[in-house]
Amino acid sequence: MISEFDLIKEYFQRPQHPGRATLGIGDDCALLTPTPGMQTAISSDMLVEGRHFFAGEDAYRLGHKSLAVNLSDLAAMGARPVGFTLALAMPIADRAWLAGFSQGLFALADAFNIELIGGDTTKGPLTICITVFGELRPGQALRRNAARAGDDIWVSGTLGDARLALAGYRLEQTLDAAALHTAAVRMHTPVPRVELGAVLAEQGLAHAAVDISDGLVGDLGHILAMSNVGATLNVDALPPGEALATRAPELRRAFTAAGGDDYELCFTAPVSARAAIIAAAGSVATPVTRVGSIEAAPGLRLVDAAGQPLDLQLASFDHFTS
Amino acid sequence: MISEFDLIKEYFQRPQHPGRATLGIGDDCALLTPTPGMQTAISSDMLVEGRHFFAGEDAYRLGHKSLAVNLSDLAAMGARPVGFTLALAMPIADRAWLAGFSQGLFALADAFNIELIGGDTTKGPLTICITVFGELRPGQALRRNAARAGDDIWVSGTLGDARLALAGYRLEQTLDAAALHTAAVRMHTPVPRVELGAVLAEQGLAHAAVDISDGLVGDLGHILAMSNVGATLNVDALPPGEALATRAPELRRAFTAAGGDDYELCFTAPVSARAAIIAAAGSVATPVTRVGSIEAAPGLRLVDAAGQPLDLQLASFDHFTS
Repeated sequence: MISEFDLIKEYFQRPQHPGRATLGIGDDCALLTPTPGMQTAISSDMLVEGRHFFAGEDAYRLGHKSLAVNLSDLAAMGARPVGFTLALAMPIADRAWLAGFSQGLFALADAFNIELIGGDTTKGPLTICITVFGELRPGQALRRNAARAGDDIWVSGTLGDARLALAGYRLEQTLDAAALHTAAVRMHTPVPRVELGAVLAEQGLAHAAVDISDGLVGDLGHILAMSNVGATLNVDALPPGEALATRAPELRRAFTAAGGDDYELCFTAPVSARAAIIAAAGSVATPVTRVGSIEAAPGLRLVDAAGQPLDLQLASFDHFTS
Repeated sequence: MISEFDLIKEYFQRPQHPGRATLGIGDDCALLTPTPGMQTAISSDMLVEGRHFFAGEDAYRLGHKSLAVNLSDLAAMGARPVGFTLALAMPIADRAWLAGFSQGLFALADAFNIELIGGDTTKGPLTICITVFGELRPGQALRRNAARAGDDIWVSGTLGDARLALAGYRLEQTLDAAALHTAAVRMHTPVPRVELGAVLAEQGLAHAAVDISDGLVGDLGHILAMSNVGATLNVDALPPGEALATRAPELRRAFTAAGGDDYELCFTAPVSARAAIIAAAGSVATPVTRVGSIEAAPGLRLVDAAGQPLDLQLASFDHFTS
């Protein structure tokens, strides 16, 4: 049986990059040297087998997704990532699993030029806890409480394909192999919108932002509650994922509005910033779509393309009531 | 059933302290403003039910210990803590458990004047992942690779009582109620040696340090391996805990040398620093004891009070081979 020490050395310790982490794995702590004048943004997410991913989930995809969901939180704050820690509980130290998981993890880390700087491994039910660190200038963070009446509401990319994949796996929807594959890529290997969040923050274009992990309606609801505002959301303007786009309108509405696991950004911005937002999003090759407006009147009003009220039964995902 | 949102609000969100955390719980990320010129030290530990603590463990003690073991890593680096994140998986959202856990957690946090700045809660097998942040001046970190031949080896406090409590629970040793209570306090509510680590680092008194979590012999072994040195350890000089002190010499030797769960510091320092170390440790009311010497010859030599070799069968705890 591989020891904890050898396991870390073999699968998680890499030649040290020249970077902000002046001490990596193997000591009591990691050391980060903050860039002078910058704030540190920190997010921590825990993924549990059977809850956030299926038992037997492919290890490479799981390594990717575990880091992606944390980077998505940094993106929603407008911070640029600098490094992360990994705490990992596993029932057994399985070499094939470790090889796949670490490869998926490091492939995404390399895509954003960040390093694993420390962590912990132990025996236990498969549980992955990543804490990610980013930097941003004081005052530039995209806060949930900063939306203002009159703001446009925007979303990045497309929504709902991850939820459609889940419906396919659960046999709630019949998908052909090609559609299931397209949707499953969105579910298993989301690409966090790090560049978009950073340019929105650095150029001061957006007021509030949140990443869409539990479904747009629920996550936008956090912005509304913390900003003491309401909104009208044009559900028919929500950009569906490629696989979802060909499905029935009711399904498209439900899964774009409240699908979950999208890892796109939802942000609010003044009307005067429209052109600049389209230019900034274009500069980082990220599609963005205007989908509604922030209003002073509390509550979230869902409407169709004609502006007529929609009565959708939607629920945001909650870990302790669902 | 309590929702995830209400759970966080009720048990983990407190009035914001004036401090370095400019944004706490409730947004996508926490924001820390680093003190100019300081490095950030980061440590992450995961505690799993049935592995690091018994099923049914008292929630208050568990809250305390979960934070304590992380602060102990900061102490071993010589960093002063500034804040922490908590990721928590629980099978059910039990109000009594949450109240106890959060009280134990915050009591220790308050003792070190630090705040919970963010995290995650989810349903799953009881698993606690804390990531703690500290600060220290560049160049002052107590590294595992910095021991030098000729250094004294020191330990703080006393060793072995936590292991004795475990032996009592397992009925490997018969303990009366008073002895079990004394030992159990060390096992369940260790007090991390934060002040000692910080003064040793800030005054430049120690070379290398490690916290004793898996047993002294194993943890000292990390220093020896990373510093490319060896050592002689006087096992009879190891200060036993109050309950262990009255037990048979063989048990005392085994549990002080390799008991585990001590959360004391082991550090190395030049002979010239002896008086300054005693003064510094006195200034933070922490007993310290000289227990051996670092030597150029590789390997760890265990000796008795007379300097005669001891042949103890000791094993450091490893999560994947034990």
